[in-house]
Amino acid sequence: MPSIVALCGGVGGAKLAYGFARVLPSHDLAVIVNTGDDFEHLGLRICPDLDTVMYTLSGVDNRDTGWGRAAETWAVMDEVGRLGGETWFKLGDKDLALHLLRRQLLDGGERLTIVTRQLAARLGVQSDILPMSDEPVRTIVETAEGDLAFQDYFVRCHCEPQVTGFRFEGAVQATPSPEVQAALSDPEVRGIVICPSNPYVSIGPMLAIAGIRERLERTSVPIIAVSPIVAGRAIKGPAAKMMAELGGPVSGLLVARLYRELIDGMVLDEQDHALVGQRRDDDPRLFVAPTVMRTSEDRVALARECLRLLDELR
Amino acid sequence: MPSIVALCGGVGGAKLAYGFARVLPSHDLAVIVNTGDDFEHLGLRICPDLDTVMYTLSGVDNRDTGWGRAAETWAVMDEVGRLGGETWFKLGDKDLALHLLRRQLLDGGERLTIVTRQLAARLGVQSDILPMSDEPVRTIVETAEGDLAFQDYFVRCHCEPQVTGFRFEGAVQATPSPEVQAALSDPEVRGIVICPSNPYVSIGPMLAIAGIRERLERTSVPIIAVSPIVAGRAIKGPAAKMMAELGGPVSGLLVARLYRELIDGMVLDEQDHALVGQRRDDDPRLFVAPTVMRTSEDRVALARECLRLLDELR
Repeated sequence: MPSIVALCGGVGGAKLAYGFARVLPSHDLAVIVNTGDDFEHLGLRICPDLDTVMYTLSGVDNRDTGWGRAAETWAVMDEVGRLGGETWFKLGDKDLALHLLRRQLLDGGERLTIVTRQLAARLGVQSDILPMSDEPVRTIVETAEGDLAFQDYFVRCHCEPQVTGFRFEGAVQATPSPEVQAALSDPEVRGIVICPSNPYVSIGPMLAIAGIRERLERTSVPIIAVSPIVAGRAIKGPAAKMMAELGGPVSGLLVARLYRELIDGMVLDEQDHALVGQRRDDDPRLFVAPTVMRTSEDRVALARECLRLLDELR
Repeated sequence: MPSIVALCGGVGGAKLAYGFARVLPSHDLAVIVNTGDDFEHLGLRICPDLDTVMYTLSGVDNRDTGWGRAAETWAVMDEVGRLGGETWFKLGDKDLALHLLRRQLLDGGERLTIVTRQLAARLGVQSDILPMSDEPVRTIVETAEGDLAFQDYFVRCHCEPQVTGFRFEGAVQATPSPEVQAALSDPEVRGIVICPSNPYVSIGPMLAIAGIRERLERTSVPIIAVSPIVAGRAIKGPAAKMMAELGGPVSGLLVARLYRELIDGMVLDEQDHALVGQRRDDDPRLFVAPTVMRTSEDRVALARECLRLLDELR
């Protein structure tokens, strides 16, 4: 069993997961990853968050874009475009190699969890990267311009439509995989960390699955979250824009309140120290740390700080 | 309706089809293509002969290899190999673009015939390239080392095992597509040409489909075949080796006899002029022409000669 279980979406969450992978012994980290962004495209199963986590933990990620692989080439996509195919979702040549292997493994009847473990192993990843469910859950962004499948909102519409809500199709029927159930049910785990990921569309889909939410509510293991909002802005992605459009004050404190029933502590960025004074009695405990991860050393330092806090909360 | 209907496999047949496409008006050629070599690989539907014909007619084919595209790159395949995936079947980056579009169109529920027409149109091909059937037919090569799926025999085993026979799984149940039925049933067609393709594994799978064989037997339209065997050797591929292993004399005359009940005339290469003297009364009429197609001009010249013979036989 892993000693740390991290829950995350793509970029920001993957960075903290990388920090944990660096400071923990091999095989001592399980990362439960959002699959609400997954979709079928060009006949392939695209799992953006799983891939970002796999690429980040294996060190082949593209740190400039925050998605895809480093030193990527685009021969296939260029030709897809010349043949009149869809090119709005960019799939590089190296990335496509992984997608072909995933398609082949899925066509062979394997569960996404097993397929992901095999792909991660081929990338040399020693942490256990777990899709939140082997069953499909699809995030729908409800906007002033109508409902949008997540990738339509995120990539095609550049997050421009005003958000009014979210829906997670399939979440009611979905169960966490046996591997996720085990990771969230083990009282020996040192701690559970909700990474600095978008609370609505990265962590939200997981919490919409009763089998995940209830295990988080019930566990005796300490749970902390790290705010993806720093000084009123998201480090990357639409979290702050969504929060504003839904009427909130854009702050890490609001994120803490979204997770109120689940977490034992919330890590705010040092820039948001003043928020600690706004804490109400029914809010989670608030901690302050440098959460902006520009370098690998930043990631490792934040992971160490999370481990310290979890041990303090235990 | 087309004026010429050509039946072919890959390389050699595609060259003659190219000749017809050059000498006939647009949309005046239908090419019925073997799909017995098709298989699923890396989650994609691979149709080697359809692709060779499409690439050849669109002029993007690789004339050095005889398969795949010119100016090809290998970024995806290289990465598939690094990730421990299968690389025995080479799929170039440009080639993969077509395969992704095919997968997407097939996943959308289209018949292979419609998918192929859409892909050919994107490649700028004006001839009608028709899979022999929308239903799966799979060529099995029976060898001294056991049964081999065609690509295992052809690519993985380099055609080395000794052939004892062939089997076409699914052929008994398969029907030609409505488009193939129409092309082979139209008495107004100027002629039908069996291209210089392997009689066993390129033309054989078509003839194993009763709905194709019976239409060829019944039609009043003249049918000629062009021998793929020249001076006792195949221009490309294992046809001569197979013919020898099955005990035949390796010659265009044997090919004529394999097609005896279907064709009105057989075109032998000029190097095989002496075979004409070996003709028996129940053999098809034998003609002689330069059949080796080294250049585009050779292809065009052979196509013109075929048209002349068809008109003579009409």
